[in-house]
Amino acid sequence: MISHEQFSHVDTTPASQARERYRAGLIEPTAGVARGFTQANMIVLPRDWAFDFLLYAQRNPKACPVLDVSDAGSHTTALAKGADLRRDVPLYRIWRDGRLAEETPDASSAWAEHPDLVSFLIGCSFTFETPMSEAGIDIRHITDGSNVPMYLTNKPCRPAGRLHGNMVVSMRPIPADRVADAATISGRFPSVHGSPVHVGAPEAIGIADLSKPDFGDAVRIEPGEVPVFWACGVTPQAAVMASGVPFAITHAPGHMFITDIPDSAYHV
Amino acid sequence: MISHEQFSHVDTTPASQARERYRAGLIEPTAGVARGFTQANMIVLPRDWAFDFLLYAQRNPKACPVLDVSDAGSHTTALAKGADLRRDVPLYRIWRDGRLAEETPDASSAWAEHPDLVSFLIGCSFTFETPMSEAGIDIRHITDGSNVPMYLTNKPCRPAGRLHGNMVVSMRPIPADRVADAATISGRFPSVHGSPVHVGAPEAIGIADLSKPDFGDAVRIEPGEVPVFWACGVTPQAAVMASGVPFAITHAPGHMFITDIPDSAYHV
Repeated sequence: MISHEQFSHVDTTPASQARERYRAGLIEPTAGVARGFTQANMIVLPRDWAFDFLLYAQRNPKACPVLDVSDAGSHTTALAKGADLRRDVPLYRIWRDGRLAEETPDASSAWAEHPDLVSFLIGCSFTFETPMSEAGIDIRHITDGSNVPMYLTNKPCRPAGRLHGNMVVSMRPIPADRVADAATISGRFPSVHGSPVHVGAPEAIGIADLSKPDFGDAVRIEPGEVPVFWACGVTPQAAVMASGVPFAITHAPGHMFITDIPDSAYHV
Repeated sequence: MISHEQFSHVDTTPASQARERYRAGLIEPTAGVARGFTQANMIVLPRDWAFDFLLYAQRNPKACPVLDVSDAGSHTTALAKGADLRRDVPLYRIWRDGRLAEETPDASSAWAEHPDLVSFLIGCSFTFETPMSEAGIDIRHITDGSNVPMYLTNKPCRPAGRLHGNMVVSMRPIPADRVADAATISGRFPSVHGSPVHVGAPEAIGIADLSKPDFGDAVRIEPGEVPVFWACGVTPQAAVMASGVPFAITHAPGHMFITDIPDSAYHV
């Protein structure tokens, strides 16, 4: 179990300063922010739903690699010193009966509705973007200053208890001669989605039009580039919708929780 | 999520025949049996304890890497076609109020006491023994035809809910000039305990005498060899004891459940 205590020798100022900006109300996608520190997807559920979700994550580890689970009622995490999970994400989504009820930069009041919330932090593919970039692979959405494009696929996840839904993927256009490198590099980070789940042929996973992502922003695809798809930590939100979960708090896609953990901690 | 359905092209006869022998009553340690097929530790708990255990596993992934979780009340697994988790392990342990109540080759009657049992299959370090052996590293307990030695350490696991306890480790003596190779090779299998947690200095983790393992058999240590310790899937049994869990069924140490999944499926 990785914890921020192991990295007390690391200067985590960029991560804690980013959290402070978001706590103060700044709203922005976090791609490229506090480069080198692990970002995480979040889903927060009442204790009664926690086992179903943890099982869903275990059965769908490419999409839902769990990095930390907080104790019921807690709003702290082992992954970031002094963090407040209710306020340190730039933008939250509040879900009621499987529907998006609200987006807010501060989830404190929704959080207060349930005394027994369990928070799950889930790996994010942003973690392997730095090593891919260092290997000379352009990360298009960072270069172009936009949010990563994400798509709801037709690939069902393995259900668990009351939870079911399809996989969400993120997409990066990769030059055909670097696809193997992108697969190899990301594969070395299995706890943050790992290697791609699909390369090319978007129609085979139910994506009709790459220019119309279900979440995030569309990105340029240059000639000779292939769309490469990674399992995405927005998958839990698809399950919330498909399963009609009564109450959940999540991050808004692309607006991640920034931890104190160096990306390299998840390298195998 | 790995499932036996992905390996329908693989001849799994050695695995299914081993399970049939154990179902018929054969009792033996499984090291070296059905070589090339993944073996698993097992713990079975009532539904009321399942979330605590899944969280314990998530917080202690080196010791408790979860490969499959069955639905409550089921005695099948996605990892082996036609398997019966109540009978296909060569030797079971029945635990009551944190104490070992019985060892039996057939857990059916104990299983029938609870209608809502949830079964967890957990990775086993036997998985990386084949590639270590292929790299020319002698696996002493296989060479000598004994069970692997396991030790209860003084290293506490991160608790979860009602569960706490110390880590159990398995030990293999490795020539000093191959320790790095053993670490590298096992590190490529993070979901079956991965790289060693400790190399040399057994006293630093509370092991006073290597010739007196807490589970399994002592093994020869030759001059120039270093004891190398890997996190072990008997750790849940230490938690059952330390936490006074009212009811649990586990495998007996070294007597594993043999799946249909090729070891290579867990290679990253």
